[in-house]
Amino acid sequence: MSRIAYVNGRYQEMRDASVSIEDRGYQFADGVYEVCEVRDGRLVDMPRHLTRLQRSLSELRIALPMPLSSLAVILHEVVRRNRVRFGIVYLQISRGVARRDHGFPLSRVKPSLVVTARTINPAKGAENAARGIKVITVPENRWPRVDIKSTALLPNVLAKQAAREAGAYEAWYVDGDGFVTEGSSSNAWIVTKQGRVVTRPDSSGILSGITRGVLIEALEALQIRFEERPFTPAEAADAAEAFVTAASMIVMPVVAIDGHAIGSGTPGPVARRLREQFHRFAAFS
Amino acid sequence: MSRIAYVNGRYQEMRDASVSIEDRGYQFADGVYEVCEVRDGRLVDMPRHLTRLQRSLSELRIALPMPLSSLAVILHEVVRRNRVRFGIVYLQISRGVARRDHGFPLSRVKPSLVVTARTINPAKGAENAARGIKVITVPENRWPRVDIKSTALLPNVLAKQAAREAGAYEAWYVDGDGFVTEGSSSNAWIVTKQGRVVTRPDSSGILSGITRGVLIEALEALQIRFEERPFTPAEAADAAEAFVTAASMIVMPVVAIDGHAIGSGTPGPVARRLREQFHRFAAFS
Repeated sequence: MSRIAYVNGRYQEMRDASVSIEDRGYQFADGVYEVCEVRDGRLVDMPRHLTRLQRSLSELRIALPMPLSSLAVILHEVVRRNRVRFGIVYLQISRGVARRDHGFPLSRVKPSLVVTARTINPAKGAENAARGIKVITVPENRWPRVDIKSTALLPNVLAKQAAREAGAYEAWYVDGDGFVTEGSSSNAWIVTKQGRVVTRPDSSGILSGITRGVLIEALEALQIRFEERPFTPAEAADAAEAFVTAASMIVMPVVAIDGHAIGSGTPGPVARRLREQFHRFAAFS
Repeated sequence: MSRIAYVNGRYQEMRDASVSIEDRGYQFADGVYEVCEVRDGRLVDMPRHLTRLQRSLSELRIALPMPLSSLAVILHEVVRRNRVRFGIVYLQISRGVARRDHGFPLSRVKPSLVVTARTINPAKGAENAARGIKVITVPENRWPRVDIKSTALLPNVLAKQAAREAGAYEAWYVDGDGFVTEGSSSNAWIVTKQGRVVTRPDSSGILSGITRGVLIEALEALQIRFEERPFTPAEAADAAEAFVTAASMIVMPVVAIDGHAIGSGTPGPVARRLREQFHRFAAFS
């Protein structure tokens, strides 16, 4: 099935969807993105994603190319035109097209906007979740501004690839103090033997995940004890459970870290429950 | 004057020159680049640039899209078609086009190749060099693999912009030990009061600059004393001279750091001499 993308004002066949070679997103990774889950044709927690998008843009002083309400219309339209019922919608904004020069363009340029969507077979996600994923750890080597969801993702690409080549699915970064920051494309969590759910505060070292934020609210509603603090790979290896969160994975159980089984080596009851319950706490639009 | 770019096998008008929105260079900064000086219509030190390009690609396990000799032909052709006598030629290679997924594409993809060229008025460079540029210092915040000339340049963009807003032209990164690593798009040098030229070794923290490498050879030939060691911003502020090197700037005198005049506050004799002499030691093709 051909896919439709929105690119700078036009809905186009994916094979025709292109940006200028002088787009600063291409030459400088001077842009940001968001990925939003699509579930039964509706967008999950889109307002939160757009709020975070606005913050990323603001930190980089990239103008919002249109009001958030117009962006929302485009996100829905791309989902609709691609007939995505279950999957993701992807949005990327760069600073725009200008003659190559590291500093911001001296004259006002229009930011570039790209939106795509694609189906992800929910059965495949369920299968992965039933089996659980393995993670490896890698030294944190990204710049400190990982709170900005930028497209400067080369370090993440290499970490994800390292995980794959180690027979794992995700790489968890470990900072200079020995604590896990986050995964290459997800937030990292453990469940202690005392049943407390633990994840790192979003004050440093991580992107403030939307799924993460919603899940923290869910934990309270579900009366599951929660600690927002850093943890080490050793604590994760010794934990009862572990999991990751991301819009494309929701809650995905982690069953091994660096080759060591976590808990029973199978998805734990807390992660399974949170995966089942998550969408009760999400906002659909 | 319209400009011509080479994009994936075709010479195109710049306004038509585009890459897929799924080019991994756009979505992940999964690519590398080179900038080569053009002088009197000839390319300066191109073989060294191509050797470094090959190394960057190899570190990222991106295939060379064609033999280096063919790349050289394209570089020359883009310079010719744009009638560039003095300026730069820019080459970018990304891992190619694939459905968005952090890890390397599972099936073989063809790397994307983009080449552009543009004129830079040599009088403007001479004018800047006669006046000298100012630099500021910023904390090093880039990933450790700055030895790979990747397009994940967002931190460099922000550093360059910070310099501009401080009334300076370049930002020098300072590492956790208090030593200057390099500029956001150049290598950093000082000249001590004893007349020794100093720059940081390329073993860590910097890109191994081509202009830097040629200049080190020139220093020997010119019998100028040279020390390859890190230096601090304080040492730079107290130095006799400072300068930066890059293919687009050759040797550019630095006359102030963080608002403090360096030496006389005007371009120093060593930097001026090295700028004049540089091309005697460069290879033209």
